Amino acid sequence: MLQLYFWPMACSLASRITLMEAGIEARYHLVHLWKKKVIEDDTDFWAVSPKGAVPVLVLENGERLTENAAVLQYIADLRPEFGLAPPPGDPDRYRLQEWLSFVGTEIHKAFLFPTFWYKDQAANAIARERIGKNVSVAAEHLDDRQYLVGERFTVADAYLAWSLLLLGRGGVDVASWPSLVSYLDRIQGRPRVKAAIEAERQIYKTLMA
Amino acid sequence: MLQLYFWPMACSLASRITLMEAGIEARYHLVHLWKKKVIEDDTDFWAVSPKGAVPVLVLENGERLTENAAVLQYIADLRPEFGLAPPPGDPDRYRLQEWLSFVGTEIHKAFLFPTFWYKDQAANAIARERIGKNVSVAAEHLDDRQYLVGERFTVADAYLAWSLLLLGRGGVDVASWPSLVSYLDRIQGRPRVKAAIEAERQIYKTLMA
Repeated sequence: MLQLYFWPMACSLASRITLMEAGIEARYHLVHLWKKKVIEDDTDFWAVSPKGAVPVLVLENGERLTENAAVLQYIADLRPEFGLAPPPGDPDRYRLQEWLSFVGTEIHKAFLFPTFWYKDQAANAIARERIGKNVSVAAEHLDDRQYLVGERFTVADAYLAWSLLLLGRGGVDVASWPSLVSYLDRIQGRPRVKAAIEAERQIYKTLMA
Repeated sequence: MLQLYFWPMACSLASRITLMEAGIEARYHLVHLWKKKVIEDDTDFWAVSPKGAVPVLVLENGERLTENAAVLQYIADLRPEFGLAPPPGDPDRYRLQEWLSFVGTEIHKAFLFPTFWYKDQAANAIARERIGKNVSVAAEHLDDRQYLVGERFTVADAYLAWSLLLLGRGGVDVASWPSLVSYLDRIQGRPRVKAAIEAERQIYKTLMA
């Protein structure tokens, strides 16, 4: 059985969404991301991954795969019948990789800076401007499209939708882009996406209580 | 013929290296990255890509592909006989995607912050510490390996080697990691890699003269 190390509402949520969309049961290990501890047995998370980051997907053979772009494509390819990634060789597969990279480098990383790493007001303002410009690229793409790639939900949508849920933490309001508001409604309207988000929100609330 | 929009010694160098390693002739368009102009005809680079970033690869059908992770895999797959990426379906293909993502999000983006975006000394010091930690993950992996993935040079090496060449700009010295010094020697010792780097250094010098 696959195993996923996660922190609730962190980017590992995109992996949970993908597992649920693919109908794959997995074992989930809750990690305390600041203390770097696996909560169930208080073991050192650095021993699980030298990156100290989620997601970590433990494969059937025991190997560990990290990085959203890799983990999401791996899970999608386990159940090609769900079309969560265009098949290898399809020109759209490169579009999927393009969006996974863009969300990872230009949206996800960008809002972490003002959220967690900047203390300075001026630096935060510059960061927000950068994030806004990057998010606009996705918003314009979605002006006349339902999904990022092709005509159906893919793992790139799982990753972008997660990043939009967290965008407010970077001081940027998704409401500025109507195309993204309706996109996020559409993605969150999927029963399995909704269930994945609700599960993690509940865990988060319990942890923070 | 493929076309590549580039700025010398920017991350588009990894695409040039890959094109040359794959023996693919391409047309190269020099972009002034700060002025956002295509130098040959002084046209607006924003019209080429709404991201305003290199690389932009123009495919045979006229479509434009961006993002290193996507562009590098695309080029590698055009000439599978060179093994620049493990074939789709091979477990190592996900390892390639893992490294492309790690270099993109944790090394490339990380050193751009102190290089171009931070003015503050304290922020720079924190950034350098982060970069060092991230680079160490690659250095440890390469302690007993010649290449990032499998037993041969792949596009992940093209991207990591480029990022190591630029690391000094982030105030981090690659000489701190002996495994990376010999790795960089090994990668730069490849005649086509060497030719690609020399070509771009020459263009850079001419532009800056």
